Parts: sequence; structure tokens; C-alpha cells
Amino acid sequence: MTVVGVIGGGQLARMMIPAAINLGLELRVFSEKPDEPAQLATTQVGDYTNLDEVMDFVRGLDVVTFDHEHVPTQILKQVRDAGMTVAPSPEALSLTHDKIAMRRALTEIDVPQPRWQAVGEGTDRDSAIEAVGGFPCVAKKPTGGYDGKGVRVIDSWSEIDDWLSLGPVLLEEKVPFVRELALLSARRVGGQWQPWTPVETRQEQGVCAVVIAPAPALADELARRAESLSQAIAEHIGVVGVLAVEVFELLDGSLMVNELAMRPHNSGHVLTELSITSQFEQHLRAVADLPLGSTDLLAPVGVMVNIFGAIPGSLLRSALEAVPEAKVHNYAKDPRPGRKVGHVVVLGNEVERALERATVVRELLQANR
Amino acid sequence: MTVVGVIGGGQLARMMIPAAINLGLELRVFSEKPDEPAQLATTQVGDYTNLDEVMDFVRGLDVVTFDHEHVPTQILKQVRDAGMTVAPSPEALSLTHDKIAMRRALTEIDVPQPRWQAVGEGTDRDSAIEAVGGFPCVAKKPTGGYDGKGVRVIDSWSEIDDWLSLGPVLLEEKVPFVRELALLSARRVGGQWQPWTPVETRQEQGVCAVVIAPAPALADELARRAESLSQAIAEHIGVVGVLAVEVFELLDGSLMVNELAMRPHNSGHVLTELSITSQFEQHLRAVADLPLGSTDLLAPVGVMVNIFGAIPGSLLRSALEAVPEAKVHNYAKDPRPGRKVGHVVVLGNEVERALERATVVRELLQANR
Repeated sequence: MTVVGVIGGGQLARMMIPAAINLGLELRVFSEKPDEPAQLATTQVGDYTNLDEVMDFVRGLDVVTFDHEHVPTQILKQVRDAGMTVAPSPEALSLTHDKIAMRRALTEIDVPQPRWQAVGEGTDRDSAIEAVGGFPCVAKKPTGGYDGKGVRVIDSWSEIDDWLSLGPVLLEEKVPFVRELALLSARRVGGQWQPWTPVETRQEQGVCAVVIAPAPALADELARRAESLSQAIAEHIGVVGVLAVEVFELLDGSLMVNELAMRPHNSGHVLTELSITSQFEQHLRAVADLPLGSTDLLAPVGVMVNIFGAIPGSLLRSALEAVPEAKVHNYAKDPRPGRKVGHVVVLGNEVERALERATVVRELLQANR
Repeated sequence: MTVVGVIGGGQLARMMIPAAINLGLELRVFSEKPDEPAQLATTQVGDYTNLDEVMDFVRGLDVVTFDHEHVPTQILKQVRDAGMTVAPSPEALSLTHDKIAMRRALTEIDVPQPRWQAVGEGTDRDSAIEAVGGFPCVAKKPTGGYDGKGVRVIDSWSEIDDWLSLGPVLLEEKVPFVRELALLSARRVGGQWQPWTPVETRQEQGVCAVVIAPAPALADELARRAESLSQAIAEHIGVVGVLAVEVFELLDGSLMVNELAMRPHNSGHVLTELSITSQFEQHLRAVADLPLGSTDLLAPVGVMVNIFGAIPGSLLRSALEAVPEAKVHNYAKDPRPGRKVGHVVVLGNEVERALERATVVRELLQANR
């Protein structure tokens, strides 16, 4: 039986458990705390920035993969040097540690993306701001951002004084997009690559709130370009596992790459019910070097809505009663205002109806937050 | 978080794990051995016929349910007397311990079934055999049978001399059926009841080999009768959880009940992919007193094929490569000739094609057995 290790015990590791059970893979999770969402498969609790602890964890694994992108590249390289398969590779993952390196890698393969500049305290500010199209522009901390954290839309340099005092900052053109899409795909060790249909993501306060799949009214030509763009990135960075490419769709029908993630991604949760192969199963197949599964869809439409705050038992009961077709995913996290604690997927024949039904669940679950 | 305990650590308990993960229930399994299929959720290993061990296990649970029907009724009653919710109830489960009691319960509500007689060493053999329509007839040991074990088609009394020396035997009319169906449904604590579409089961050497859902070419009127029959049984015995009713379909369009099971059942595995709510999720919802989920179907047809013997990694790779749409469920059991070690489900638009694709997987997985 192939043994797959996952560093990080959050909801992404949690949702790999069902896929591992079905395929008959053994899953072992390295969590930071004993009661994290993936605790059922947790075999070690510790600090993933401590080389000795990570080396302890990987002993006996066939491959190690990740629930998050925070393991230091140096540790990943030492784990690989010790003979362990690391998927995705330290080199691929390092691009997610540094948004400036990511922009540089995308520039190498001439992928459409917002104009960008890396700036520091000594930068010529006028030429830098001109290169990204002037204010307002988008400023990003190169490391550690997620769910809108570490991203600011700025009208003046003074708004990032605090960041600049700490190190380089990425400036990006503020793109007048009409919507955001996510392109999910997976790449296997030997190079086999398999995309899902593009999905539309809708943010609220900078956080993904709703995903609609397939992305409604996506022109065929755009879908083809999205697919080849996604494949070009996957091959250039040699990712193994799931790759999520967040893109902006512009009014003129062009696409620009926003962010990359090299793991199952919130925008792909709708695929668990909608696609024959979920992103969690596909990720495990890819890293365990099993053939990738079909990404055909099982319904015309799927809608995913994130749940924030808490999922109290009594409210869960009301929600399941009101919407018997809802697939609720409860991450079993401690409640906290604004915390992503679960999601719900509803499949259907058309977007409005599915979105309405999924929203009923969200409203009921969040009734008293 | 609701805590559900499962006695028995086989593949049925194993397949409850993904459903528990999604709903955010805590699942604890009491296994006989540490390396059983549900080992990931196993919190205790021991002997389910030992009252003290069972009482230890149920401490801290909200409800206890089952992967099999072998826990002695006396133990179940004592667990309930100690204040634990037992679902299904000891009274309901006891019918699966004794096929004669089951026939008697079905007679009480006038459910169509084969003519039957309980016989022992002192029975008037001529009138008994006449009452079931003469030889050949079907003889069943009242307890402990599964997968064709404990069932014989007999032409003379001497063929069950060994059984009669041990206790009563159930004789049943040998019904000239055209096919076998299974009626899966679930009943919640408060009485809510929800069926799935009837499925057709095909046996090889007395063991379920193939399931086709929905049962092809099932007349509407027959489907309605199947549903009301299934509901009548669920209500009469007051089952909580999944109920599987195996029935014979006769040439004249009548139905006769063959067997009952009060847990997720091999005949329902196809529903994991085909139905919005799997039998494992529905069983957990029912016993945890959550509203039952929709049983609508996600494709026109689903086919399930059992895998026997072993699932070697190299053959799994070939099978997944040949049939990317196959959903393989690997129970992670030690290989043994003839042992049920997994199953595969293929969804599709028509039976022949889905069956052909699922059979490709089976042939590849069983290539060297």
C-alpha cells in the first residue's frame, strides 16, 4: 500500500482522507496541533520548520505532499536529498513562497499577467509606479499572504511604508477585470496533465465566497486559451499534484494570471461533487503516480458557497432539512468570527437555482453569527 | 460534535469514514483486530461479545451503530438499558440474527414472501415439505449466514442432516424468480423515511457480483409496490438507519421478500457515486438524527462490480489507466482467494456500456488471481 504523507493538518488534508480511503492509500498527516481538521489521519504533531521533526515524519513514506505552502524550501530540499519524493518539488513550491519569483517565472514563458514591479526602499518610485500604470495599483507582500491578507490597493506610497521597511514589495497593475476565474488542473509525476473546466470565483471582502462551475457563458475560444495557459504554467514549473491558476477575465476577453497555488484549492471544492474525480483524489493520484481520473462533470452546474464563523449542530439540522440536496462539508474547526469553517455544494441544472439553494444553507448556518 | 460509534471494523465501517468527515461527525470504530479496513477510525480493538468491552467502547458516544449484525441481542439491550442510543434497536437487529423470526415478522404484516416452514428434528417432514411446495426447496440456517453461506438448495432431507442436528432450520419455497432486486432505504429516529431507486443485483456462485441501478426496465407499478413494501417493513420493525430488502421479481410481476439487512449493504455501493446521498451518509444521518438527504440520481445509470482476491498496486495502475472514469474502492484487506476486497462503480448513460467499462476494471484487477 502506497503511503502518502501530508504536511499540514487543515481542511485540505482533511478532505484528502476520503479520497485516500477510496483508493486504498495510507495517508499520514503532520499537523501543528492535535485537534486540527485532519486529526483523524494525524500521525505526528509538531513544527514543520524543524528539520528533525520533518525528517521523523517522512520516514516510511513513499511521497510527501502538502496542505499548505509554508514549509521552508531549505527543509524540502534536505528531505529530497535524503531520498524522499517531494511533490510538488521544492523548486515549484518556492514560487508560492515569493510572489516576485512567481511573476518572474510567468514572465519567462510570456504568460499574460498584470504589469508588475518589485520595489524596495531604494527604488526609483516614479518610474516604478509608471511601469504598473500609475495609482491606484495593487501592492502585495511577497510572502505569507492568503484570503486577501497581504494585499492592498494603494493610492500612494505612504500606504505601504510599513511593508517597505521589512523588505521588497510587489506592485501590480490594477486590472479592470470583469470577473475572476480559477483554472484547476493536475499533473502527474511522468507529465500526464488533466484540467477541469474553468470555474468562476466571487470574492466578498477579498475572500472567496462563491464558486460557480463551469464558469457561466465562457466563450469557447477563451476556454481553450485558459486551458493552454494553465498547461504551459504546469509544465514550465514542473508541478506535480493539483495546480490552481487564478486569472482575471477582462472586458476585451483577455486573461491575466493573478495567483498560483500548488495544492487543492478552495476554488476547486465544487469539483468534489461535480466532477467524476475530485481535486483531492486527483492530487493523491498525481503525487502517488497513479493515472489521473476523468474530469467529466456529473451535472450541468455546481455552486460552492463558503461558510464562515461556526456550524452549530442545531443550525446544521435546520439547513439539512431545508435543502436535502445540499452537500455540507464541515471542517470541524473551532468557531471564530470570520473563520472559514466549511462549505456547501449544490448541483443543478442552472446557476440561479443552485446558487439560491446553496445560499439558503449558508444563511441558515450563519443565522446567529 | 456528535460522536457515532460503530461496532465492527469492516469495509462498511470504513466507508462511513468519508461521510463522517464531510458531515463533521466524530466516528469511533470498535474492531476485532487492529488492521481491519476501518482501522483509521478504530479507537478500540476487542471482542464485541464481551459486555465489559462493549460498555467501555460506548462510553462518550451519542449513538452506537453497526458494521455487521453479530452483536448478541442481550448485550445490545444492556447497552441500551445503560442509557445509550442503539440504532437500529436490539429488537430490530434480532430479526437479522434469526431468519425464522424475520419470516414471522414479515408474516405479521402480510408482506409477500416465499412459503416457509421452521423445521426441527421432530417435525412432520411430509407436511413441512408440502407446505413449501415440495423439493427442490431452499434450506437456510437461521443464524450466521452471509454471501451464500448457510443456504442450500435441497432435494432431500438428508442434505441438511448436519444442520438439523444443531437446531431449527428454515425451509423456503424455491421461487422461480426472473431476477433479484434490492430496495435500499433509510429511516430516521423520528420516523422520516427515504428510499433510493430499486437496484438489480446479479449473483455469481451465490455472491453478489454486479449491481445495476436503477433496476433496468422496472415497471412503474412494480416500483411503486416495491417502495410501499419497503416502507411497510421499515415501519413495522422500526428500523433506524439503512434498511436493505432483497426481493425476488417473478415472471408474473410479483415481488417476494428474500432477506433483510439493517445497515449499509453491498447492493447499495453503487449509490455512493450515483445518488446525491450515499447509503453511508444516509445511515449516519439517520442514526445521528439528522434530516435525511436527497436520493436523486446524478446519472442515468450506475453499475457496481465487486472485486475478489486482491488489488495489487501494479494492476490498480493499469485499471485506472484503462478506465479513467472508474471509481475504485479498495478496502485495504489482506489478499485471499475469493475474498471481497473492493468494488468499482462506473456511471453512464446506458447499462451495457457502463457494465463493459466496470468489467474491464475487474478483469484487469483480477488478472493474476
